[in-house]
Amino acid sequence: MTPESRFLRACRREATDATPIWLMRQAGRYMPAYRHVREHHPLLTIIKTPELACEVTLQPIEAFELDAAIIFADILPPLEGMGLHLRFAEGEGPVIGNPVRTVDDIARLRVLPPEETLPFTLDAIRLARAQLDSRNIPLIGFSGAPFTLAAYAIEGRGSRNYMLAKGLMMSEPVAWDTLMTKLSEVVGAYLLAQARAGAQALQLFDSWAGQLSASDYRQHALPYTQHAIAIARQAGVPIIHFATDTSGYLEAMRETGADVVSVDWRVDLSAAWQRLGANVAVQGNLDPVALLAPWDALKQRTQAILDQAGGHAGHIFNLGHGILPETPPDNVKRLVDFVHEYSAPVHA
Amino acid sequence: MTPESRFLRACRREATDATPIWLMRQAGRYMPAYRHVREHHPLLTIIKTPELACEVTLQPIEAFELDAAIIFADILPPLEGMGLHLRFAEGEGPVIGNPVRTVDDIARLRVLPPEETLPFTLDAIRLARAQLDSRNIPLIGFSGAPFTLAAYAIEGRGSRNYMLAKGLMMSEPVAWDTLMTKLSEVVGAYLLAQARAGAQALQLFDSWAGQLSASDYRQHALPYTQHAIAIARQAGVPIIHFATDTSGYLEAMRETGADVVSVDWRVDLSAAWQRLGANVAVQGNLDPVALLAPWDALKQRTQAILDQAGGHAGHIFNLGHGILPETPPDNVKRLVDFVHEYSAPVHA
Repeated sequence: MTPESRFLRACRREATDATPIWLMRQAGRYMPAYRHVREHHPLLTIIKTPELACEVTLQPIEAFELDAAIIFADILPPLEGMGLHLRFAEGEGPVIGNPVRTVDDIARLRVLPPEETLPFTLDAIRLARAQLDSRNIPLIGFSGAPFTLAAYAIEGRGSRNYMLAKGLMMSEPVAWDTLMTKLSEVVGAYLLAQARAGAQALQLFDSWAGQLSASDYRQHALPYTQHAIAIARQAGVPIIHFATDTSGYLEAMRETGADVVSVDWRVDLSAAWQRLGANVAVQGNLDPVALLAPWDALKQRTQAILDQAGGHAGHIFNLGHGILPETPPDNVKRLVDFVHEYSAPVHA
Repeated sequence: MTPESRFLRACRREATDATPIWLMRQAGRYMPAYRHVREHHPLLTIIKTPELACEVTLQPIEAFELDAAIIFADILPPLEGMGLHLRFAEGEGPVIGNPVRTVDDIARLRVLPPEETLPFTLDAIRLARAQLDSRNIPLIGFSGAPFTLAAYAIEGRGSRNYMLAKGLMMSEPVAWDTLMTKLSEVVGAYLLAQARAGAQALQLFDSWAGQLSASDYRQHALPYTQHAIAIARQAGVPIIHFATDTSGYLEAMRETGADVVSVDWRVDLSAAWQRLGANVAVQGNLDPVALLAPWDALKQRTQAILDQAGGHAGHIFNLGHGILPETPPDNVKRLVDFVHEYSAPVHA
């Protein structure tokens, strides 16, 4: 069985020879090769230069026996195509220069085809696919989910309480619906275009969904995620839904329509699967901090996750959130190899 | 039925005439009266001056028809008694000048009687009780929980990933056990002393427990919370356990031994109660941001929570986390009055 089929088969809950593994932000600052590229190019330049994005996408594939690549991009560039000014400020992360605050701001947001607004990522996907095919490694495309994009568009930067975003959601439900409808169309079309450019699976990052109450999530976020997924669904590739802090309403993650639900470490994998039901694949769920621990501690936690996944077809090993910059690359290598070695006899 | 019995009866899951309500951080910056005191005194001065702590404790009781007061203090002062240097830095929150990083640091931590290390809060409780008794308002004492105190002691300040705290927990389990055992004894004795000084209920704040994986929580945090609660239990007063982001392993919150489990807005109150079992009271769980919304939006969310609590005896209305400084006091008044008015017919 080739690595390609291992990951894609797991997405479809088909039998595999071992548990597939990839890591969120696997192309990132913990890798010397990535830091070398970043020394010469700002983040948005890498994202917008297909050759550089392709190069960085392949770095972790060259270093580790990972079962999937994910195109190097960011969750926020779709907002640029809508007319927002995005920059990555040193030490404070992404900042929107002209955040959305009023009904007029929402009315001005453009909904344009991704071929026009995000051609660089589609080109990067084409380049990366050409290189990955010979290695039989599938490529994942992705986008921020409507709620997370809305929260960023409104707050303009990371936030502790999301007062502005929730404020608009709670006090202006009609404006919120307009904003979220636009976002769901942009996100859906972007995911679809990535699949058509060559992405063999798609992941939706709703990184901040866990800030919402269970009922606000169901009423004000879930329908728009469902809409985006319904659009992307036309491509016929597996769709992964990622969120954190959503263990309280995990059942709703299944209702997004995704084929794979990515869960964080705040829930036991076995408990998560029981609540989600057997007819969905599950991705996760190592605490990223465990990758900084001595091997024994890392191994014990990895083994516990694999043991919980046990007999299930449809487990994709991953972290519960992105890999931390402080992670020793050696630990990544040992983790990847261990997941394959330990799980193979269980799958046999 | 007096307000006192309303809150304490609900803690014991006994029938009440209406749903009791109090709000975490109800004495705080959203109140002009509090800001006035803070203009003249730094935070630690208020906490360490019983007359000032008592005055601030009573401010929200004078302004709103709340069913309980909570002594004005902070979760971190128990660390000072152990030998750590605590200060509240402008704009960055609490900072520990000499954080715990090594086995030697842990060995040096002192376990002293709270009468010696935290007499000011015990005195403040005596003063506040004298004033609250005539109004029939019960007084809640509290402490940070062992894990949250350990995380702060190690990190030295707020953290995004708790890499240092989790790092010590994962790589040095014996040292971690020593640290957590000391903390659980300090916390347990402090809670017990507060009850003996007059606190009629006790709340344990494990504000950061939700950063842990389900299994790390059960192995490395829960046993020490259980130990602290077992010590405090001798006082015979109801014990409330507060945490956020723990919806993934909510069942473990029940295993702490608390009489009341405080849940955040990331889980429906009805789902939470189902998972916790009927033989525990539940506190919560409004999103604090809802208190900044227009009344209609706030009322709708409040009503939904009360509807979910429905027939259950043992619901204490509260926020899922502390009240935000930006909260309009008028909204607090409307919320408190609405909770009483709307719930009374259901309880009748």
